[in-house]
Amino acid sequence: MEILDGKKAAQAIKDELKMEVAQLAVEGKKIPHLAAILVGNNGASETYVAAKVKACDEVGFKSTLVRFEADIPSVKLLEKVQELNNDPDVDGILVQLPLPKHIRESDVIDAIDPDKDVDGFHPVNIGKMLQGLPSFVPATPHGIMLLLEHFKVETKGKHAVVVGRSNIVGRPMSILLSSNSNPGNCTVTICHSHTKNLKELCLQADIIVAALGKPEFVTADMVKDGAVVVDVGITRVEDSSRKTGFKLKGDVHFESVAPKCSWITPVPGGVGPMTIAALMKNTFVSCKLKN
Amino acid sequence: MEILDGKKAAQAIKDELKMEVAQLAVEGKKIPHLAAILVGNNGASETYVAAKVKACDEVGFKSTLVRFEADIPSVKLLEKVQELNNDPDVDGILVQLPLPKHIRESDVIDAIDPDKDVDGFHPVNIGKMLQGLPSFVPATPHGIMLLLEHFKVETKGKHAVVVGRSNIVGRPMSILLSSNSNPGNCTVTICHSHTKNLKELCLQADIIVAALGKPEFVTADMVKDGAVVVDVGITRVEDSSRKTGFKLKGDVHFESVAPKCSWITPVPGGVGPMTIAALMKNTFVSCKLKN
Repeated sequence: MEILDGKKAAQAIKDELKMEVAQLAVEGKKIPHLAAILVGNNGASETYVAAKVKACDEVGFKSTLVRFEADIPSVKLLEKVQELNNDPDVDGILVQLPLPKHIRESDVIDAIDPDKDVDGFHPVNIGKMLQGLPSFVPATPHGIMLLLEHFKVETKGKHAVVVGRSNIVGRPMSILLSSNSNPGNCTVTICHSHTKNLKELCLQADIIVAALGKPEFVTADMVKDGAVVVDVGITRVEDSSRKTGFKLKGDVHFESVAPKCSWITPVPGGVGPMTIAALMKNTFVSCKLKN
Repeated sequence: MEILDGKKAAQAIKDELKMEVAQLAVEGKKIPHLAAILVGNNGASETYVAAKVKACDEVGFKSTLVRFEADIPSVKLLEKVQELNNDPDVDGILVQLPLPKHIRESDVIDAIDPDKDVDGFHPVNIGKMLQGLPSFVPATPHGIMLLLEHFKVETKGKHAVVVGRSNIVGRPMSILLSSNSNPGNCTVTICHSHTKNLKELCLQADIIVAALGKPEFVTADMVKDGAVVVDVGITRVEDSSRKTGFKLKGDVHFESVAPKCSWITPVPGGVGPMTIAALMKNTFVSCKLKN
């Protein structure tokens, strides 16, 4: 069993980006600039945004963090998005989700210029991804593909089972893995809450992507020997023995599943860092396309 | 075994549309108007466009057929698309594919106003479909969903195997069948040229959608008893005994597969008529949204 070490792979990607940014600076060209919008003060969102800003610092990107109170009117938020769309210095715009309930998330995402939508959530980017055209691919699925690529995990002709059909992970993952690309060219089965024989399906899988958001849902009896297991789940589970009061758990019961795997991602330190690396990569590409 | 009779289901949809159009006329409202662009004189394309125009007549839509020679410059075609985008009377625009090689199809599709893209090929519509938002769904997958709906074929919790990953059929089909909708909520496996154990996978399927474009590829030994089989293929195979010189063949070997099925589409008369019915339905919806 080998670890799909997301920290290591993400570091390699960030190191490369850092060099490329330094090169841009030498050539007197524009440096990538990511603008993040954070509404309210959800603990997890704070952590994610802070990690993204930190990653920008690491690779030498400019970053702007725009904060709003939880009760900001939708129209104000849309105005800010428009302002960032029009700002030629800003290459990437991300609005940290979830948003407060009075704001319709799709309105905000649709308002982002698709050419600055480095989170890859705009319908235009989703549609282009499905059509195999150049696009910003959502950061988590993109990060997983980069992780498989980094560790040279063979995917062609493999049977991948994706558990979960969310718009931001499960669905794009099923598209990317089944695309005519490398990594890619998997036969892909997408499973969800209405799937009847999930265990049997998982047992057929050469690659399992667990993205349903249920801690330790995938257990050893669902995984065949030699499988590759990618754990997208990251749930805060109460743990009074810890200073933070919680522990991060994935969707896979790591201790029992890991010994059966050829490759497995840890939680934390697997998909999470790759999501951020993918976001940095998207922002860099957005900047390069304008240079 | 029962026949998923596309002619019958399409007729029912067209009859309903005809009544609704008559109602619009009574109310003095705008009548749906479909504009079709045909470039060159490919035999199959001529047939398809003629069938679409005929369907417009049947349901009482206005239709405009714009013809161009095969050597039309790309820019001229784009100008015409723009003109139709700007024409408030036109509700739906379709550009019959394939286009001559000197024209990039994605340029033309991207130029169509997404709100008039009744073929559902624009990235915005594809992206919204994937996100489960209201959108124009590509006519063939949409027609298949309408067919399953018409005959009340149970899909929830079933395992659907989609053979073929094309942008216009296989991929959207896999999304629609796995969506949280009715029909929908299938576990979906998408297969393609790199799939290794296609026969075993098909044998697991409660529903098979064959959309690979290889005549009579799916044979009885690949289909389990009681399966639902949807045949999207329609290939012209030479047949000198016929006046036309060809015979239409599906991707399924009907004679041997049909006896095993609970439901099966014939070719012709299955998916084909439904594609046109779905196009009419999309055009009607586009018109209604403006009324």
